[in-house]
Amino acid sequence: MSAKVTKALAHAAQNLGATLDALRELAKIPSVSAEPPPNAELARSAAEVAAWMKRIGLERVEVLEVPGAHPYVYGEWLHAQGAPTLLLYAHHDVQPPGRPTHWKTPAFEPTERDGRLYGRGVVDDKAGAAIHFAAIDAYLQQGGLPVNVKLVIDGEEEIGSEHLGEFLATYRERLSADCIVLTDTANLAAGLPSVTYALRGIVIVDVEVAGLDHPLHSGMWGGPIPDPVMAMCKLLAGLVDEHGKLAIPGICDRVRPLTPSDRERLARLPYEEAAFRKDAGLLDGVAIAGEPGFNTYELNWHRPSLTISALEAAPMKGASNQIVNSARARIGVRTVPDMDGREVAALLSRHLETSAPWGMRVTAKVHSVGGWWSTTPGGPAFEACERALKSGFGVDSVYIGCGGSIPFVEPFARVLGGVPALLVGLEDPICNAHSENESLLLSDFDKAIKSAIHLYDELSRLPRG
Amino acid sequence: MSAKVTKALAHAAQNLGATLDALRELAKIPSVSAEPPPNAELARSAAEVAAWMKRIGLERVEVLEVPGAHPYVYGEWLHAQGAPTLLLYAHHDVQPPGRPTHWKTPAFEPTERDGRLYGRGVVDDKAGAAIHFAAIDAYLQQGGLPVNVKLVIDGEEEIGSEHLGEFLATYRERLSADCIVLTDTANLAAGLPSVTYALRGIVIVDVEVAGLDHPLHSGMWGGPIPDPVMAMCKLLAGLVDEHGKLAIPGICDRVRPLTPSDRERLARLPYEEAAFRKDAGLLDGVAIAGEPGFNTYELNWHRPSLTISALEAAPMKGASNQIVNSARARIGVRTVPDMDGREVAALLSRHLETSAPWGMRVTAKVHSVGGWWSTTPGGPAFEACERALKSGFGVDSVYIGCGGSIPFVEPFARVLGGVPALLVGLEDPICNAHSENESLLLSDFDKAIKSAIHLYDELSRLPRG
Repeated sequence: MSAKVTKALAHAAQNLGATLDALRELAKIPSVSAEPPPNAELARSAAEVAAWMKRIGLERVEVLEVPGAHPYVYGEWLHAQGAPTLLLYAHHDVQPPGRPTHWKTPAFEPTERDGRLYGRGVVDDKAGAAIHFAAIDAYLQQGGLPVNVKLVIDGEEEIGSEHLGEFLATYRERLSADCIVLTDTANLAAGLPSVTYALRGIVIVDVEVAGLDHPLHSGMWGGPIPDPVMAMCKLLAGLVDEHGKLAIPGICDRVRPLTPSDRERLARLPYEEAAFRKDAGLLDGVAIAGEPGFNTYELNWHRPSLTISALEAAPMKGASNQIVNSARARIGVRTVPDMDGREVAALLSRHLETSAPWGMRVTAKVHSVGGWWSTTPGGPAFEACERALKSGFGVDSVYIGCGGSIPFVEPFARVLGGVPALLVGLEDPICNAHSENESLLLSDFDKAIKSAIHLYDELSRLPRG
Repeated sequence: MSAKVTKALAHAAQNLGATLDALRELAKIPSVSAEPPPNAELARSAAEVAAWMKRIGLERVEVLEVPGAHPYVYGEWLHAQGAPTLLLYAHHDVQPPGRPTHWKTPAFEPTERDGRLYGRGVVDDKAGAAIHFAAIDAYLQQGGLPVNVKLVIDGEEEIGSEHLGEFLATYRERLSADCIVLTDTANLAAGLPSVTYALRGIVIVDVEVAGLDHPLHSGMWGGPIPDPVMAMCKLLAGLVDEHGKLAIPGICDRVRPLTPSDRERLARLPYEEAAFRKDAGLLDGVAIAGEPGFNTYELNWHRPSLTISALEAAPMKGASNQIVNSARARIGVRTVPDMDGREVAALLSRHLETSAPWGMRVTAKVHSVGGWWSTTPGGPAFEACERALKSGFGVDSVYIGCGGSIPFVEPFARVLGGVPALLVGLEDPICNAHSENESLLLSDFDKAIKSAIHLYDELSRLPRG
């Protein structure tokens, strides 16, 4: 290990308390990107990120403006002459906090309990930014980094980085790099560093079923008048079969079959059903679902899935005996190679619009389409990453897929000419990203900072493209 | 026509403006019984009803207390010696107003437009009380009524008159009568007076489907983790067949078949599909549903129906890409002779609890059970009613069923020893009872007051039981 790395590790260790304080300050800001721009909280969050960047010595720190988008924050340090350039990505926007009553401590008052920091956005993904800020600081305190770095801290990841196209068109030149490092993914288990080689895409379609121009008394009209809520239930019920497998005609036609070697590799990953059930919070007696013949990792990483992430007709509170005139739902389909997101959106929309009973009026609206991404790990960047993770965590890393989506990855890797993209992160199975009581495992946060310090060093020897 | 009737009609006509003013004042009070007692608005509404009763000369006016119930208001006039006693029933509680944005004028600011008075509760059922107050006033101004009257103005009809059992047990003696007149039903068309001979019952069951102890990220978990919202949709979708006919095993076994003479009578009632569609607000292209082989009246009055009157999982607003951990629905089944409400509730609950996919945890809770009621029109009370309606409306009345429920009728008629129950009312097909923009057709209100004046006179000659 070089003296520079040793010193940086020492600095980061000494500075860990201050790093955590800064993370807590950032996590107090409710930077919920679901609230449309202009959004003062996102602006505040971007300003706080920018201030942190300046404080540690990053240069050219600025908010990269894209009309209609929440603010992306940029910073760089480009004085490692002749060394490779890394593009480091994280995001500062967060999911809505959910139900306040379900948080043990308030979502935007980060609180430490039993070695975890609880709060919305702490792990997804403000810690992702904090890791790099801490590692960069540890080097710059000693005069310099072994690599050049460009940082992009996204402000609209949780809403699908909707303006990424414009962002890339505008800033493509500035962002050129030899390797991308994204810090927004999961570890297969706490303490087990994991490199993500595949992300599912997501297609979101909103659907409305309407049958009446106003609600009716269920007694005065029930029988001859069809129930729009029942029609919605029948429509949605038909989207998957009894296993949960997608049942929309044609939608799975392009799904790439798993190869025998994929299946061997996946079968070797540690898996304990009891732990999986517990981490998911599955209630006793509830079955693990999915197409027969696929294991849990295969179902989650390599097969499409469909979720009804919102459904509303009439609320239970104050419910009257009415036939509700319309109902709305949001349907999310997670896509895998080689599905085509736009085709999936079209097939799903057409199926919805032609399949409701009783001639109900169905309006399907494509909310967003994000592509899947998949790479074949191997080569010097991945090998450097494996070594860095082992140094930081003390154990061998594993390669994993991810059932979720990071809209940034696929277009970015493509625009940057197919440079390697290293996806690492901190979300362990019980971190509750996207639900109440989100939390960050502090011991892994520490190990991730160490890994980042090693990673910059390892990647400094990366052959330049 | 007797001079007394002529004078009463003249008085009522002259007083119509004042009657409407009083109705408007009463309809300004948001006496929503879905809000649990003690409820200041229900108390205010009861006080206003009592004040109106006292103003017109009713005696022994008081709120009849039943522990835990919204206030019932009572008044009487018992000085028609030797004449029959009528028990007059209406209710002063109202449905929740629904969505404020869907009201053209505010729900609790009664507003006249194009011959109709708009506001929550104006037709269901504050007008029902107002009709009798106006008719009684018209007689008492001249010294007396031709019959004895006892009035019960219910405060919890819209929540199923939940405390009716205790109410009857407590006040049964006081309420003895020779004939019941309920003013809370519909007319088949505007201007067409209708006597209701059958009411459906209602069984309400609330169901929750839960699979997880907290929401999960739909990407990180989608596939192996079954979707509780999808499970709810599949569960609800299976409750009726493709026609909307109830598909719960055993639930229709006791349904009394229609006789050929029933079917002949029902086939003679005026029916126009275009008007029915328009009145219901059915959107273009949406089919009239129901079991094949039954006409609209048969489906609505003589066959059971099932409605999902509330359904909530996660709201569309701020929806995140989550697997929602649980969903809730309210299911209403309208029952007909000879179904047994408690049996229906048990069959439905058991079916729900044993039919969800993926072993989802289902909790079914019986919210309420109200019985159907049915009578065979005929005899002096019904004949008197036919004559009174013809006098008031100028056209022959028709006998109709009602798809809705009035929990008061069946137990009351039973407790009073099977005295005739005359069900008349003012709800025309476009009155929007229970939905937004509820309204009262003012011309029918006027005719109904005239009919009530005739009815007291006609029933004064009713043989006493």
